[in-house]
Amino acid sequence: MQGTPQPALAINHISVDCVVFCIENDELYVLLVKRDTNELHDMKLPGGMVYKEEILDVAAQRILKDLTGASVDSLRQFRSYSAKGRTNDPRDTHWLSHTLNTDIDSILTVAYFSVVNTKRTINKESSGIWVPLKSIGELAFDHNRILQDGFNHLQRIATVEPSILFEFLPRKFVISQLRAVYSLIYDKEFDVRNFHKQVNQMAWVKPLEERQKNVSHRAARYYKFDKVAYKRFFKFVANW
Amino acid sequence: MQGTPQPALAINHISVDCVVFCIENDELYVLLVKRDTNELHDMKLPGGMVYKEEILDVAAQRILKDLTGASVDSLRQFRSYSAKGRTNDPRDTHWLSHTLNTDIDSILTVAYFSVVNTKRTINKESSGIWVPLKSIGELAFDHNRILQDGFNHLQRIATVEPSILFEFLPRKFVISQLRAVYSLIYDKEFDVRNFHKQVNQMAWVKPLEERQKNVSHRAARYYKFDKVAYKRFFKFVANW
Repeated sequence: MQGTPQPALAINHISVDCVVFCIENDELYVLLVKRDTNELHDMKLPGGMVYKEEILDVAAQRILKDLTGASVDSLRQFRSYSAKGRTNDPRDTHWLSHTLNTDIDSILTVAYFSVVNTKRTINKESSGIWVPLKSIGELAFDHNRILQDGFNHLQRIATVEPSILFEFLPRKFVISQLRAVYSLIYDKEFDVRNFHKQVNQMAWVKPLEERQKNVSHRAARYYKFDKVAYKRFFKFVANW
Repeated sequence: MQGTPQPALAINHISVDCVVFCIENDELYVLLVKRDTNELHDMKLPGGMVYKEEILDVAAQRILKDLTGASVDSLRQFRSYSAKGRTNDPRDTHWLSHTLNTDIDSILTVAYFSVVNTKRTINKESSGIWVPLKSIGELAFDHNRILQDGFNHLQRIATVEPSILFEFLPRKFVISQLRAVYSLIYDKEFDVRNFHKQVNQMAWVKPLEERQKNVSHRAARYYKFDKVAYKRFFKFVANW
């Protein structure tokens, strides 16, 4: 298209990689898979090769389910990474040709992210494992970078669409759970009293006539996320 | 990775497509290129094939520059589209093999978007052409969909990072120009008086000691976008 002669065109295999987050007991977890071979005992993001004629979104669902058992509705694409320079580590190329039974030297990957509300989303018998974000060491390929980008993306989305923060929570939750979500996503402490005030101003967080049972401390009130109120409010904002 | 036998893997050529917006004289324009051959007289988004070993962001800059003469710093990736189903139109496949001198039947495309502040960004001798968004008809391939996604993405980004709206404007501008940007991006009329009030609350829009010259109407005051004030304010918001 830009006159001849031109350099060779890229012809790549395509993969997807998924960054899945979960919060339990005031800890932010990321879903990883173990890459266990004779030589390797490390971890990577759940991901794999896209089939010929397969839609990217469908491939992401399939691969996440195959590797971890998790069925996640809301996998959202956030960035693609050129084949070039995705790894300089011979262990990665060796592992690839070993698991795929073929030599593959250039893979463009499309990254997805998602939020789930329980670690039980995954199948315990699978290779999936929840690892606290702050404990994650060196991952395979460029997965540390993809994870970082995915987390930044989650923070940005939360600013426009705070509804995503409620995807971390069960249907009914107490304010301290919501506060943990805000603290972990924005990496910031929130004063208990001020946070309660802020929540009172969120028209989409509705108190229920129900309190915790069988707790040693003062039983806290349950709240729920009100989709209808949220849509009313955020429609208004978007229409500004 | 998911046991054998497995379906054939996707092996795709990679392209980039760019959605570039500009506002002039209260009109929102999109940068297109003419696809002129003996049989075809239609338009497409500026885009082309990625070279082997080329970084996606670099490819997007190169291709946009080659096709339209535009050098755009802030091309931002927003979504990739699977090779499958990107076109059912034999004219597209014919045009591809004609221009590339080779048969290519599956192309994954990575879409970028950008905002520029003048239609003069492009080279008049190039195949680039500015077309009002509301006059755009059927484009080649899946480019109508990519354009729609790009516009939605611009609207979302503007909600989180309103600084992007100022990329449409010259260094100094009058409020009616800013109002046109808001109207066109949010597809909504803004009352003159209310809009002035809203702008007064934007700490990052600073009045200058300078007014329009040689205008038939009352000379309006110039304003500028204040990056420092903006960063102070949005740092606060992001840290909430």
